[in-house]
Amino acid sequence: MEKLTDQILKEVITPRPENSFKGTFGKVTLVGGNRNFGGAIIMASMAAVCAGAGLVTTATDESNSSALHSQLPEAMFADFTNSEQVASLIHAATSVVVGPGLGDDEISLQILKNVFANTSDQQNVIIDGSAITLMAREGIDQPLGNIIYTPHEMEWQRLSGIKIGEQTAEKNKAVQEKLGATVVLKKHHTEIYTNDQIYQLPIGTPAQAVGGMGDTLAGMVGGFTAEFNDKADKAVLAAVYAHSAIAEKIAESQYIVLPHQISRALPTFMKKMEKLDDDHHIGFLN
Amino acid sequence: MEKLTDQILKEVITPRPENSFKGTFGKVTLVGGNRNFGGAIIMASMAAVCAGAGLVTTATDESNSSALHSQLPEAMFADFTNSEQVASLIHAATSVVVGPGLGDDEISLQILKNVFANTSDQQNVIIDGSAITLMAREGIDQPLGNIIYTPHEMEWQRLSGIKIGEQTAEKNKAVQEKLGATVVLKKHHTEIYTNDQIYQLPIGTPAQAVGGMGDTLAGMVGGFTAEFNDKADKAVLAAVYAHSAIAEKIAESQYIVLPHQISRALPTFMKKMEKLDDDHHIGFLN
Amino acid sequence: MEKLTDQILKEVITPRPENSFKGTFGKVTLVGGNRNFGGAIIMASMAAVCAGAGLVTTATDESNSSALHSQLPEAMFADFTNSEQVASLIHAATSVVVGPGLGDDEISLQILKNVFANTSDQQNVIIDGSAITLMAREGIDQPLGNIIYTPHEMEWQRLSGIKIGEQTAEKNKAVQEKLGATVVLKKHHTEIYTNDQIYQLPIGTPAQAVGGMGDTLAGMVGGFTAEFNDKADKAVLAAVYAHSAIAEKIAESQYIVLPHQISRALPTFMKKMEKLDDDHHIGFLN
Amino acid sequence: MEKLTDQILKEVITPRPENSFKGTFGKVTLVGGNRNFGGAIIMASMAAVCAGAGLVTTATDESNSSALHSQLPEAMFADFTNSEQVASLIHAATSVVVGPGLGDDEISLQILKNVFANTSDQQNVIIDGSAITLMAREGIDQPLGNIIYTPHEMEWQRLSGIKIGEQTAEKNKAVQEKLGATVVLKKHHTEIYTNDQIYQLPIGTPAQAVGGMGDTLAGMVGGFTAEFNDKADKAVLAAVYAHSAIAEKIAESQYIVLPHQISRALPTFMKKMEKLDDDHHIGFLN
Repeated sequence: MEKLTDQILKEVITPRPENSFKGTFGKVTLVGGNRNFGGAIIMASMAAVCAGAGLVTTATDESNSSALHSQLPEAMFADFTNSEQVASLIHAATSVVVGPGLGDDEISLQILKNVFANTSDQQNVIIDGSAITLMAREGIDQPLGNIIYTPHEMEWQRLSGIKIGEQTAEKNKAVQEKLGATVVLKKHHTEIYTNDQIYQLPIGTPAQAVGGMGDTLAGMVGGFTAEFNDKADKAVLAAVYAHSAIAEKIAESQYIVLPHQISRALPTFMKKMEKLDDDHHIGFLN
Repeated sequence: MEKLTDQILKEVITPRPENSFKGTFGKVTLVGGNRNFGGAIIMASMAAVCAGAGLVTTATDESNSSALHSQLPEAMFADFTNSEQVASLIHAATSVVVGPGLGDDEISLQILKNVFANTSDQQNVIIDGSAITLMAREGIDQPLGNIIYTPHEMEWQRLSGIKIGEQTAEKNKAVQEKLGATVVLKKHHTEIYTNDQIYQLPIGTPAQAVGGMGDTLAGMVGGFTAEFNDKADKAVLAAVYAHSAIAEKIAESQYIVLPHQISRALPTFMKKMEKLDDDHHIGFLN
Repeated sequence: MEKLTDQILKEVITPRPENSFKGTFGKVTLVGGNRNFGGAIIMASMAAVCAGAGLVTTATDESNSSALHSQLPEAMFADFTNSEQVASLIHAATSVVVGPGLGDDEISLQILKNVFANTSDQQNVIIDGSAITLMAREGIDQPLGNIIYTPHEMEWQRLSGIKIGEQTAEKNKAVQEKLGATVVLKKHHTEIYTNDQIYQLPIGTPAQAVGGMGDTLAGMVGGFTAEFNDKADKAVLAAVYAHSAIAEKIAESQYIVLPHQISRALPTFMKKMEKLDDDHHIGFLN
Repeated sequence: MEKLTDQILKEVITPRPENSFKGTFGKVTLVGGNRNFGGAIIMASMAAVCAGAGLVTTATDESNSSALHSQLPEAMFADFTNSEQVASLIHAATSVVVGPGLGDDEISLQILKNVFANTSDQQNVIIDGSAITLMAREGIDQPLGNIIYTPHEMEWQRLSGIKIGEQTAEKNKAVQEKLGATVVLKKHHTEIYTNDQIYQLPIGTPAQAVGGMGDTLAGMVGGFTAEFNDKADKAVLAAVYAHSAIAEKIAESQYIVLPHQISRALPTFMKKMEKLDDDHHIGFLN
């Protein structure tokens, strides 16, 4: 198992080309947020916007559109029950994020199936939260795309069939290989299983143990893979690392970290990373 | 009567265990906020989130869901008239907060009865505002749970039958003992009646005399008892103390303190408390 | 004509009594904000809350409740077409503010009549914006109460019958005397006509020439008269002075002042005033 | 082609006259923001308000009114399908901004036609985004007014018929002359085609490549032309320059710039410009 370092940030977060426009940095379509869990998809969307994706659209329950725009006028809105519009937004996306606050009822299921029916091999598809639970419960096939799962241990148990106490690196890797997908297993010292390697995140803080932290991570993975699509695999690792590096910094002066604070800190954090030369590590920048 | 000191903060707000997740810090379900008083339950929910509870759900009138998520995407929403969903959220909670902005009409009453029918002895149940008024007016029995009342003097008169001018420590304690509950009697120098002891809060400022201050306190008690559930009795005292300690600090530069400012200051304040060693008191940290 | 000085702030903004509660600082009921002009009543309400009124209720179009609570959870909401509820809120108020964003159609008129039918001599009644226009147009009698009008010059023309070019101090005073009300005539160097005296505001900045500035002033007058009800006449003067004093300070670094910034600056500004001793003027505090 | 310099800011952003009121600084009516793209018109409106226009009204889908007022109580709301009300708001405007988030369906088209039917030669009319696309697709005639188009290259292709790869200064100028309008062609080093001259913007940063950046520019052009209406042509240039100058400053410490940050920075930025004397350039002020 290879330990991630801040080196991954330097490899991924490089200066933007001078002659670029919003299309250069990809489109993210996020799908989730039922009537009860609207905050989850708002937090994920905020992460995608603040990470620097070119265009972000949030397909969610219509009761959430007002809060979405109050928090984040930069995101566009779609009604997630409008299957035609959602299909078209999926087709247009560089990265799709499905699951945050989606819920697990019959409507959630139909929405998930619609998303999965419309992805393609050219896209990054981040599958999070209740989308994972629904897949496992309903026996839904993995969709087309560069698939990235972001389960916590219980969700991984449901998807992989490996019980929480028995989730060894070896067993996890075996399932990952069958899936042919990247698995970001969220836990104390999160593990990332890719086709090539197993990575471990050596940083993080218990101040992150707050509802919405995972939604924010899913949105960051969506944002990073869209923006840095030519190095999408590294972008996943960078998103995971940045999420905890920012949290650690905030936790120096806070007992807990509110998830939206990580997103709001992204533009400044990423600028510092962009400026890092090889002799200077993040620790020096505080 | 024992005077509370900042010692209570040091006893309660200790470093989080390294290997923890959001489940470690409990779930809070808050019930309140009718069409007119939505701000009350939003302020209480903000306090619970910022105090560091693991998961926070707000059951309120549906007209408040948009403002809730605009202020606080970290909280989940439920329609407080959906009695089945509310029952299930009560069952799942470490701490229940009922009352802020609940109102006192027939719908409020049905909601309160539903909450009370679903609590258990393993839970902290904070009863605030109109929930106290309704109990007194309708003769509703105290529910199961570790019960914490947070009345102001008029609400205490309604619940205890002791008129405001006659609320002596002795009389209050006698009623508290009959109730077998903790009573946080909000007044100039708030008093806390527990099974063991009577505490007095020696701090506080008239800058706190602003609508919503009590809702914020109820939410903090909910958050602290969920997060520090293994020392729930002390957590009540710590919440009361922290609420006024933060207000005093803000009031050094403000004529009044807006309740939401106390909540937003919690993560930083709690970090300072966590770092305090025995030789240093809060005063030194300003 | 007497020039107002910062002395008025020292006379009005004195330290709060130690043993006080939110009832000590009065209740403000604001009525206004139709579907189109919701921002006006939100800005007025924010001013009343930030000025330090004990309890603030905003009676407005129901389409505004969500934005009200997103901006200001400290305010309570009422539907301004619910005449019974509005009547009851008027009865309970120390100060009533009617007019910001009320509009001038048939519904606005019915709401205004309902407000006027329910005020009493014991209350401060601030009449602003379209409420003044409606009174003049419909020939509505002045209601009971300590009446304070806050017209700009065109609204004053409508109410007084004096054309803008002819609004001399003498003529204005004569109408004021007939009305028996305080008139805050908003203009370059605002004039305040009271039963005893004519005051002129010597401060202010063109950076205040922004929509919503008058709504904020009306809310501040409502907040100050409720909070400092025992010196309500001086409270009007203090509100007018503070409004421009804060704006001048903000305008040192901004080309324009957004009205909500004045409200948000109130708690800090008022604290500085409270601390002023007689030898120090505001200018020294920057 | 003439390079724009910060000189244009000094010429346009001069001290406000002492005796001015909100009417002095013009009225802006913005039309756009369907159910899906509400954020676009909110961002444009925020730019117009923060730029210092006297009164700002936002005609948009009614689902956006709540988020509009949550973000910006200073703006007034109108339902953009209420053609009579929109017509009246267009008549009253100094500057009209149409297009941000308007969409391109049948309803969008009817709204656009209503706007175009009601402008006059005395007004600045900023035509942006889908309004340009609709004009080209439906063959709609240019309306009356001082017309300012703000297309990106694809929108310009649709309007001018010149393909993106072939958009030379000469060809663009020829079409501009036929239109008799100002064209702000948004691209790497934005070009502005006026009746007299072609200007090039030498500043800007890839950190601006974020959705909503153009909506913000359209709103700024609306705000500047209303506020500085007596020098409206220069006001367009100043808005374009200020938009990128602020972005460059923010981008010194951020990897990307969120569009709303530019608007929020306007009051402070414009104050600095107002204070600049001829020997000092913007660079000195950082």
